[in-house]
Amino acid sequence: MRHEAIQNPTPKNPVARVVIIGAGFAGLEVAKALGKAGIAATVVDRRNYHLFQPLLYQVATAALAATDIAEPIRKILRPYPSVQVLFAEVVGIDAAARKIRLSDGKSLGYDYLVLAAGSRTSYFGNDKWGSLALGLKSIEDSRRIRSELLRAFENAERASDPAEQDRLMSVAIIGGGPTGVELAGSIAELSRFTLARDFRRIRPQDARIMLIEGGPRLLPGFSRKLADYARARLQKLGVIVETNQTVDYIGEKEFGFAGKKIPVGLVIWAAGVGPSPLGRMIGSPTDRAGRVVVGPNLQVSGQSEIFALGDIAYLEDEDGKALPGLAQVAKQQGIHLGRGLADLIIEGKPIQPFRYRSRGNTAIVGRHAAIFETGRFSLKGWFAWLAWAVIHVYLLVGFQHRVIVTTQWLWRYLTYERGARVIAFDDLDHRGSRTKIDADPTASL
Amino acid sequence: MRHEAIQNPTPKNPVARVVIIGAGFAGLEVAKALGKAGIAATVVDRRNYHLFQPLLYQVATAALAATDIAEPIRKILRPYPSVQVLFAEVVGIDAAARKIRLSDGKSLGYDYLVLAAGSRTSYFGNDKWGSLALGLKSIEDSRRIRSELLRAFENAERASDPAEQDRLMSVAIIGGGPTGVELAGSIAELSRFTLARDFRRIRPQDARIMLIEGGPRLLPGFSRKLADYARARLQKLGVIVETNQTVDYIGEKEFGFAGKKIPVGLVIWAAGVGPSPLGRMIGSPTDRAGRVVVGPNLQVSGQSEIFALGDIAYLEDEDGKALPGLAQVAKQQGIHLGRGLADLIIEGKPIQPFRYRSRGNTAIVGRHAAIFETGRFSLKGWFAWLAWAVIHVYLLVGFQHRVIVTTQWLWRYLTYERGARVIAFDDLDHRGSRTKIDADPTASL
Repeated sequence: MRHEAIQNPTPKNPVARVVIIGAGFAGLEVAKALGKAGIAATVVDRRNYHLFQPLLYQVATAALAATDIAEPIRKILRPYPSVQVLFAEVVGIDAAARKIRLSDGKSLGYDYLVLAAGSRTSYFGNDKWGSLALGLKSIEDSRRIRSELLRAFENAERASDPAEQDRLMSVAIIGGGPTGVELAGSIAELSRFTLARDFRRIRPQDARIMLIEGGPRLLPGFSRKLADYARARLQKLGVIVETNQTVDYIGEKEFGFAGKKIPVGLVIWAAGVGPSPLGRMIGSPTDRAGRVVVGPNLQVSGQSEIFALGDIAYLEDEDGKALPGLAQVAKQQGIHLGRGLADLIIEGKPIQPFRYRSRGNTAIVGRHAAIFETGRFSLKGWFAWLAWAVIHVYLLVGFQHRVIVTTQWLWRYLTYERGARVIAFDDLDHRGSRTKIDADPTASL
Repeated sequence: MRHEAIQNPTPKNPVARVVIIGAGFAGLEVAKALGKAGIAATVVDRRNYHLFQPLLYQVATAALAATDIAEPIRKILRPYPSVQVLFAEVVGIDAAARKIRLSDGKSLGYDYLVLAAGSRTSYFGNDKWGSLALGLKSIEDSRRIRSELLRAFENAERASDPAEQDRLMSVAIIGGGPTGVELAGSIAELSRFTLARDFRRIRPQDARIMLIEGGPRLLPGFSRKLADYARARLQKLGVIVETNQTVDYIGEKEFGFAGKKIPVGLVIWAAGVGPSPLGRMIGSPTDRAGRVVVGPNLQVSGQSEIFALGDIAYLEDEDGKALPGLAQVAKQQGIHLGRGLADLIIEGKPIQPFRYRSRGNTAIVGRHAAIFETGRFSLKGWFAWLAWAVIHVYLLVGFQHRVIVTTQWLWRYLTYERGARVIAFDDLDHRGSRTKIDADPTASL
């Protein structure tokens, strides 16, 4: 009776019930492959959309609308009648009973469980920073950064004290990986090119954009040469880049490293992510961060009916190096596992070992400036920038989104405008109040 | 010293300081006209964007992104150096001292005050309904309706009790004016065409869309013939239209009229708006709703330096009928007052009486079905629908928005898709919890 609401539909091949947790890059590919094979599968996600996370920073910097990078999961899986979508949150996994528990008290049985719940912002034990340094992993996060960022400039325009204006126009981005670099470049361009024309009292082009990295250089996933190029380009945009600096203090109006306290209007946390806590719920070994250790066939050690992949899984390549938390890793694993699981269920064939084939690594710094690297081949500057844009449009799910994003980008390229400069009250004040103003959103103007 | 932060910039003509409250259709036109004449003016708004309210219902029904219909005020007024924008909330008006008070404690002096603060959702004394029946006047409102509406269908898909499924898939729209009609048509099409293809257990096309009007017919602003056409088209889409019915009860899971209680998943309030409360703060006569009574030159009676226009003003036409709360009324008044005020300030010329010239009235019911009326000429059906779309795209502020909206509409027309089907946690639970689910947005999947 409990399962009444969530039974799988009659599948073409009712041999096994597969439950997939998460409709990110990994989970969706598994679902599509099973759907193609007519196998009954249920995708459980607490969002109703698949999010194209690589472009989240563009929502945070007013270049795209949030809905431009979100595609309804149901729409993506519409062609597969054997696949069902469940909008629900998983709160527990009972591996012994082969059941997952949902937050509404219901539970859902499985024959095979695919754990693809991804990662989330991690403050590495400094959880109190969650209210002071905004992460960027969700639509809500991106809207929040956008609203806080734009409000900081508005508040600076109203402020009478020059020191307070300078503080409000100071943005600290903690973490010099791709997200940090992309945010820093995009915020710098927003202030120097777009906002610069619109204020009368402040000079948005003088905003202090600070990028703070704990390691010796930016972009540790790229070669030294490309990282140096990115740093030089950021500095040319006016970004202050600090490496070898560990932030040890974040307060309401300042943050600190190396004994200094620096006034700041907005702090963004791009220093790291950690796996979903579901990884720890199956009672199998994890790495220190909580990623589930899987074998080459993506099977969880000791639990033959559970698979993990994407950001929640820990898998080493042939050289003993952990695979990175990239969309392309998740996607390739999803395709591999989906096909393998279909063959396992239908024909009893064992799942083959997964091999990651890097399609190259790319990051964007700003206009005409991106980097791309694959093996020994690398590319930077104008052409890499164009390639970055084409690749990202191509990878977007949904033709409509491709058209809209291309249009917005062309427009932005030609005019230096950003179309999504909206401060929405619902986005504000959920965390912290560093740039809070006194406006009461419930009162009418 | 108090005014330090908000002094007007040096104008070409520093004869008078004009403060404009509100950057809606009325306030913006005044600011542009003053800007063209080089007169110092400050536009105060608690939003950083001008909102194209006529298309809000399309955001609420997942057809457009919220940012598609919002244009930054600063960008619109960029060409006018004498015009300054202040992102602030007005909490008081001291007409005797010629000052407005802002929520941050500062105040701003004026020589002329232009009150264009618009209207907001009014529950006509039933303020407790505010948490139960969602209004549609802001971006936040439209996102909230979108998220609640989509979540109701998701919850219905999960529900095991057929009666509960039916309840969740019941939407009541209170108020049969243009907003109510447009919402009813758009929600009906969303459920019948778009969502119908995406669910496995429920049949979204069976959703009960109810439109409840207190008066004897829909669309009292239009002729009987066109209102009857709209009703027939809505009924063809499956909308249940009830006229002469006054809703007297709204609860968490049901609403009532005529002694009946009807289970419902979402209630939307389209029954009316009232003026901003600022109208009552200047100590001049208002009508019962609180709209400031103005003379033909838009001057507030007894206060020669205060003008009111748009939804916050009460003005009768030559026949003694109050001008309606329409965008075109506000816009024409804004143009008239802006030019008149410039002539008054520069040349001392008195402001001429305003005359409203109706450009015709239009509303949309659904695909290929709109109505248009001007004087004795009226139009309905396919051609009116096309005209409606062309007019609305043309009236959008910003070329980029025109391109994006056109693209989205074409796509939607060809595919029956809606691109903005996002349930965002920040949009939910701010008011009421009728369709609340148990998902905890802070926990990770």
